[in-house]
Amino acid sequence: MRPLRSVHFGKRFSKPGTAPGTLTAPSERRVESVSITVMDFDAESLQERTVSTVDEAVAACRPSGVTWIDVVGLHDVDVVRQLGEHFRLHPLALEDVLSVGQRPKADEYENHYFIVMRLFHVVADGLESEQLSLFLGDNYVITFQELPEDVFDGVRDRLRHARGRIRSMGADYLAYALIDSQVDHFFPVIEKLGERIEDLEDEVMTDPQRDTVEQIHAIRKDLLMLRRAAWPQREVLAAMERFESARIGKETRVFLRDAYDHAVQIMDMVETYRDLASGLLEIYLSSVSNRMNEVMKVLTVMATIFIPITFLAGVYGMNFKHMPELAWPWAYPAFWGVSVLTTLGLLWYFKRKDWL
Amino acid sequence: MRPLRSVHFGKRFSKPGTAPGTLTAPSERRVESVSITVMDFDAESLQERTVSTVDEAVAACRPSGVTWIDVVGLHDVDVVRQLGEHFRLHPLALEDVLSVGQRPKADEYENHYFIVMRLFHVVADGLESEQLSLFLGDNYVITFQELPEDVFDGVRDRLRHARGRIRSMGADYLAYALIDSQVDHFFPVIEKLGERIEDLEDEVMTDPQRDTVEQIHAIRKDLLMLRRAAWPQREVLAAMERFESARIGKETRVFLRDAYDHAVQIMDMVETYRDLASGLLEIYLSSVSNRMNEVMKVLTVMATIFIPITFLAGVYGMNFKHMPELAWPWAYPAFWGVSVLTTLGLLWYFKRKDWL
Amino acid sequence: MRPLRSVHFGKRFSKPGTAPGTLTAPSERRVESVSITVMDFDAESLQERTVSTVDEAVAACRPSGVTWIDVVGLHDVDVVRQLGEHFRLHPLALEDVLSVGQRPKADEYENHYFIVMRLFHVVADGLESEQLSLFLGDNYVITFQELPEDVFDGVRDRLRHARGRIRSMGADYLAYALIDSQVDHFFPVIEKLGERIEDLEDEVMTDPQRDTVEQIHAIRKDLLMLRRAAWPQREVLAAMERFESARIGKETRVFLRDAYDHAVQIMDMVETYRDLASGLLEIYLSSVSNRMNEVMKVLTVMATIFIPITFLAGVYGMNFKHMPELAWPWAYPAFWGVSVLTTLGLLWYFKRKDWL
Amino acid sequence: MRPLRSVHFGKRFSKPGTAPGTLTAPSERRVESVSITVMDFDAESLQERTVSTVDEAVAACRPSGVTWIDVVGLHDVDVVRQLGEHFRLHPLALEDVLSVGQRPKADEYENHYFIVMRLFHVVADGLESEQLSLFLGDNYVITFQELPEDVFDGVRDRLRHARGRIRSMGADYLAYALIDSQVDHFFPVIEKLGERIEDLEDEVMTDPQRDTVEQIHAIRKDLLMLRRAAWPQREVLAAMERFESARIGKETRVFLRDAYDHAVQIMDMVETYRDLASGLLEIYLSSVSNRMNEVMKVLTVMATIFIPITFLAGVYGMNFKHMPELAWPWAYPAFWGVSVLTTLGLLWYFKRKDWL
Amino acid sequence: MRPLRSVHFGKRFSKPGTAPGTLTAPSERRVESVSITVMDFDAESLQERTVSTVDEAVAACRPSGVTWIDVVGLHDVDVVRQLGEHFRLHPLALEDVLSVGQRPKADEYENHYFIVMRLFHVVADGLESEQLSLFLGDNYVITFQELPEDVFDGVRDRLRHARGRIRSMGADYLAYALIDSQVDHFFPVIEKLGERIEDLEDEVMTDPQRDTVEQIHAIRKDLLMLRRAAWPQREVLAAMERFESARIGKETRVFLRDAYDHAVQIMDMVETYRDLASGLLEIYLSSVSNRMNEVMKVLTVMATIFIPITFLAGVYGMNFKHMPELAWPWAYPAFWGVSVLTTLGLLWYFKRKDWL
Repeated sequence: MRPLRSVHFGKRFSKPGTAPGTLTAPSERRVESVSITVMDFDAESLQERTVSTVDEAVAACRPSGVTWIDVVGLHDVDVVRQLGEHFRLHPLALEDVLSVGQRPKADEYENHYFIVMRLFHVVADGLESEQLSLFLGDNYVITFQELPEDVFDGVRDRLRHARGRIRSMGADYLAYALIDSQVDHFFPVIEKLGERIEDLEDEVMTDPQRDTVEQIHAIRKDLLMLRRAAWPQREVLAAMERFESARIGKETRVFLRDAYDHAVQIMDMVETYRDLASGLLEIYLSSVSNRMNEVMKVLTVMATIFIPITFLAGVYGMNFKHMPELAWPWAYPAFWGVSVLTTLGLLWYFKRKDWL
Repeated sequence: MRPLRSVHFGKRFSKPGTAPGTLTAPSERRVESVSITVMDFDAESLQERTVSTVDEAVAACRPSGVTWIDVVGLHDVDVVRQLGEHFRLHPLALEDVLSVGQRPKADEYENHYFIVMRLFHVVADGLESEQLSLFLGDNYVITFQELPEDVFDGVRDRLRHARGRIRSMGADYLAYALIDSQVDHFFPVIEKLGERIEDLEDEVMTDPQRDTVEQIHAIRKDLLMLRRAAWPQREVLAAMERFESARIGKETRVFLRDAYDHAVQIMDMVETYRDLASGLLEIYLSSVSNRMNEVMKVLTVMATIFIPITFLAGVYGMNFKHMPELAWPWAYPAFWGVSVLTTLGLLWYFKRKDWL
Repeated sequence: MRPLRSVHFGKRFSKPGTAPGTLTAPSERRVESVSITVMDFDAESLQERTVSTVDEAVAACRPSGVTWIDVVGLHDVDVVRQLGEHFRLHPLALEDVLSVGQRPKADEYENHYFIVMRLFHVVADGLESEQLSLFLGDNYVITFQELPEDVFDGVRDRLRHARGRIRSMGADYLAYALIDSQVDHFFPVIEKLGERIEDLEDEVMTDPQRDTVEQIHAIRKDLLMLRRAAWPQREVLAAMERFESARIGKETRVFLRDAYDHAVQIMDMVETYRDLASGLLEIYLSSVSNRMNEVMKVLTVMATIFIPITFLAGVYGMNFKHMPELAWPWAYPAFWGVSVLTTLGLLWYFKRKDWL
Repeated sequence: MRPLRSVHFGKRFSKPGTAPGTLTAPSERRVESVSITVMDFDAESLQERTVSTVDEAVAACRPSGVTWIDVVGLHDVDVVRQLGEHFRLHPLALEDVLSVGQRPKADEYENHYFIVMRLFHVVADGLESEQLSLFLGDNYVITFQELPEDVFDGVRDRLRHARGRIRSMGADYLAYALIDSQVDHFFPVIEKLGERIEDLEDEVMTDPQRDTVEQIHAIRKDLLMLRRAAWPQREVLAAMERFESARIGKETRVFLRDAYDHAVQIMDMVETYRDLASGLLEIYLSSVSNRMNEVMKVLTVMATIFIPITFLAGVYGMNFKHMPELAWPWAYPAFWGVSVLTTLGLLWYFKRKDWL
Repeated sequence: MRPLRSVHFGKRFSKPGTAPGTLTAPSERRVESVSITVMDFDAESLQERTVSTVDEAVAACRPSGVTWIDVVGLHDVDVVRQLGEHFRLHPLALEDVLSVGQRPKADEYENHYFIVMRLFHVVADGLESEQLSLFLGDNYVITFQELPEDVFDGVRDRLRHARGRIRSMGADYLAYALIDSQVDHFFPVIEKLGERIEDLEDEVMTDPQRDTVEQIHAIRKDLLMLRRAAWPQREVLAAMERFESARIGKETRVFLRDAYDHAVQIMDMVETYRDLASGLLEIYLSSVSNRMNEVMKVLTVMATIFIPITFLAGVYGMNFKHMPELAWPWAYPAFWGVSVLTTLGLLWYFKRKDWL
């Protein structure tokens, strides 16, 4: 059994009573070293650099254009703090970046928006979950990821090759593009779960195993986890669409609505799979009952046929002096006759009862 | 088992990170060739043409009157793109036309409304689902279907023979008429499911089979799929009734409310059938238990009657030297007497317990 | 099993694609001939006539005062059409009068309100459902019923004998009075179901039968049907109370609130009975399990007692040459002693285990 | 089984079609004779009288100060009618006083508020329910109870001894005080149910009886009944707090909010107990399954041990001429050896399987 | 079984009919003696004193700065009453301080806010619950706790060492800090429950015990209790954020939103665990069924193999005079041959049926 950790997104709390805004590294270190990628672009040009300190990153930002700073790895509290200081990010938001068990949410601060989303990866024994934090300021986007497996490659590509409108639009559109690719990343994950459910459906109906119920439970836990991310994610996108400030342009809002539609679709699929997975358990139970029924029938048929004729054999094995039948010449064949007839009669009875 | 595909309306996602508005053909090609039908009408005249290229279709549109372009088959991305360019349809909407796993929705764009609905066809092993996209512009309606089985024949007929008010009203009424016939198409589908549920009810109560539970599961999946289309469909109609622009006339809104009532009715029927289908599984389980009970009773009655008298026969089959009974002349008939009495006593006991 | 029809109120749909407002007679003819009753009254006088054509009915209406036209039987489309034309009733509303599978609803048209309600009658094998349509105009009320069993007798009586305020008030109060008696008609129906549930409760606890589960299922279907009528009925009354026009007077609204309270009460009782009926199935299942337990215990007790002593008898039935016990004079009584002691020991063990 | 009556608060309906406002005595007479208590007070003085006619009661009212008329027993329709006429109470409200199956509700009429609440008493076989109606006018409160067991004693005491602020405040505070003591009366009732649930929890886990499931069902019915009163009761208090007229003073509203908090607490406890009671049934079922398992194990162990050795004994009871073993001198001890070894082997096997 | 008390937070009610605002000590005395700690601070200085009477506490308050009075132990009604009189706290609020079974709530009074929260401690046999009441006035905070185990140590520490912004902000921030540390105290408690659920998951799948179901029930009760505190707690924080008065500063509201996020997270985790715990029971039941199946299979295999060959042995143990087989020389070996073949045949059959 995989640890339950996956269900509640991991241990998120610091010691109760700690001052709010205190930055503490997550308990688990998931990458070797922190890597920072800075992309700085406008419609004409693009500059991309991978650095390892915040100072280098900040130096790489040009005053005009849009800047995207992508930080992979959260174990170095200083990186987070320095970025926070330079861009005047709110301490409560920074604390949330490091508490990696957050639910998706969208908070509005004075200088910036702060978005938390979750990303899922299919691994050998189920799903792995990762927190993705995004700051959207006036002309910058800062993202924090726990793992290097990059869901943002598609966006990076579009930036590099100036595909679509992404280079000619502002930081809001960049933020949308990043969130959209995170949202769309749910689809292959859900598709995978769907395949596992389909396999279980076959298994449960044709050949239920002892561990089938454990697998159903495991898949329900995965769906529970997805659901806990999918519902608030939808709210996040609805909130972003409604944000009143001019920081999010009218054109971008149309795209956010599209991402919102995807989030609803995801939620809908997760709920559907949950319904199906619950149905599986019911089928499993009825299938177990059916098999027990079959076992009982075999026992009953066997026992019921042999019990009376065994009694008869016992009768003629008795040693009473005065048992006239024993001497009759056709007694033995008659015994066989009665036995066969009894058996045929019972077989006919069971046939009629549909037990055979 | 039919593939799960039907439940989530099919694989809808393109690679996460793809630029929004990118047009990709659906993975499955469901018709041989794309066919485009153009109907152009006003109160006085009607012109109908079936063409195969967008250029021909566009050429067939007259500037005045209402134009309805109906496209069957989605595998040719160019058709969609060219139509989009000519009528200035929004790229996100065009992308959704091709992502055939959409939930029903109604989006408002600057130049047009974009409506997605779902259509279901009863096929041999359950339901088949199809996406229906509709653009409503100022004086045109464009529809996209995946399959040629035509739910729009009734509307086409009314147009051709100028039945009802359809020829004398605008594009909004045409859109309503199309959507209404799509909505009403749910009723025969649900009726069909209702008949299957009725059959299963009979089966489950009189003669439950091993595959009964699979059939119940299959019907629940069909209902799940219908439900996923029926709920948002209701919202779509509510949204259309509320659209603020003058593109939808006051008179048409009254009709939309009527279609909304039908959508509510559909939802209501789907939920009712879901309730009934859940009840079926409970009845199935109790029926399996009952049959097991019956099997156990037969075994118990048989075993309990013969066990004591078989013991008795065993006793008098013993070879002890000193067993006075063996020599008694009436011992053998007495044995039979005891056996018969024991049997009758037990039968009476079981009768009283209502096991026979 | 009664047909499922009762659950979804009957086949309601016309061919998809039919023009809205097309009038088609319901598939089932439930009365011999259409009968039309016209009551025409003001505070001073009342005139009552039963006619068979719309022309006669219209002729019977006086210009002043309130007119109530009650039509029983829906198979004659012409009656509905002519009435619609004379009173300028909306075609969509007329279509709904004839589609007898409607959910309760209240629609506001320009000239009149249109209310659909449902009526239930207890028949031999469950419930029968009927649609009741009501048009409320400025000084007339038109009602359509499917069956002649008259729920309106009480109102008619009050009109004839000028009991209460009904003669001195307008068409709105008449409409209220009619709807109120329809709503109150639910109470005896629900009471009847309550009695059936009580009987089933007794049966399931003291003497569950094979068909008990079918009866529970049947009652749940009846409750499902009532529920589908009771929920929207509440909304209808809430909507009527909120209708903005002056067509419904302030005084009548107080009475509508009272009817609304009754509708809530009905809904509440239906939900309560649904809860109870679900509980019944759980009790049934646990009772089946209990009885199986009992059967198993009888088998186990019998088998367990006789199995060891039958073995012993078998041992001394063996034909080995060298079995010293066979020759011992007290061997046979000793055998019986051992058998009785074993039996008593096992009985004591089962007693202690509470199996006897 | 107690009658179901308790669940739907009793038969409430009069004949459908009866004119609204018709007063009919409840079908059940629950006290011998109607008793009317009049309390008339201001901050300085208090006058208390128990009378038996409405005329006497009205005579006892002083024009200034606050008057509280408490009527116990509803079978005398005249009392209700005369009070209604004197205080100009609305006929619909009076009808509801006598229809004793009402849900809690708060209605606003021109001259007065009308509040219906429910009171529960623990009796031998569960709960008994009573309707409590309260009219709050400008300077009077009129209450109607079905049973003399007096929940208002505490308030009467505070009035008599001028404890707290009750004497110095208006009719609104008196109404609050009465409703508050009714609401608080739920707590001991729920506490009692809680104790019954605790007892059942013990019983179901240590020693489930055949009637345990009936007791669980009975308690669920009691909770269902409480719930049906608790939910609308909360709404009543919320509605009273929101009543716009000056008839309810600002200070009293603070107290109403407190009563509202209690009502929420009650609802919360009822829901919690419902959750627990549902859990009980699940435990019961799993406990029944466990016991059946145990029975099966005993049977299986016994049968499995003796079946092979009984066969062996049968073999050497055969009468074949040529059975060399029969003559071997150590054959009989060898038989016993094999039997004991087989038994030990099987016992070891069952031990390992954890069946012993 | 722990008493149910924990589920409904203890007996909260005073005698129905008692005057509102009457102060009664809780029925259970949970600490030896009441202790009062007064902290008085502004940005520059801090003064901390532990006293035992209210007079000393009041004497310790300075007119300027923020005062925090923390009372541990509620059995001394006088302490509560005197504090209430000095700070003019509302009597209804004071009554709630002493009724220790309150749900979390936030009430707005004229002079102060009144917040009730709940605190949980993990003890040997589950959870222990404690009520925490907080008054927030213009420049003071008064807290009441039932138990000395101090959840406020972290805040006290930050005050003493002037860590973070706490010393430089007002009473509103102090109240936030206290509530925040109470809210965060849920996390370790939930984490603990999560570990217990994980253990039960293992147990239920690998080695279900008879008391497993009791443990699942116990954990569900704990979760029920947490849930009853977590839901209203979220509402409390939402209400505080919305409080309109200037008593809560704009800056503090940002922090309250953060605490609100934590409360939502808690609720979410509790619901997730409830889902998991329900799943456990289903797995348990299916595991019990599986084991019964296995028992039945062993019995059936054993019985079915030996039943026919025991019959055969019985046949040749009969004493008929004319049984030719008895004399055949190879009859005995043939008997063994038939027995072995029958056995092998049945074993092959069971193997194919997957019962071995």
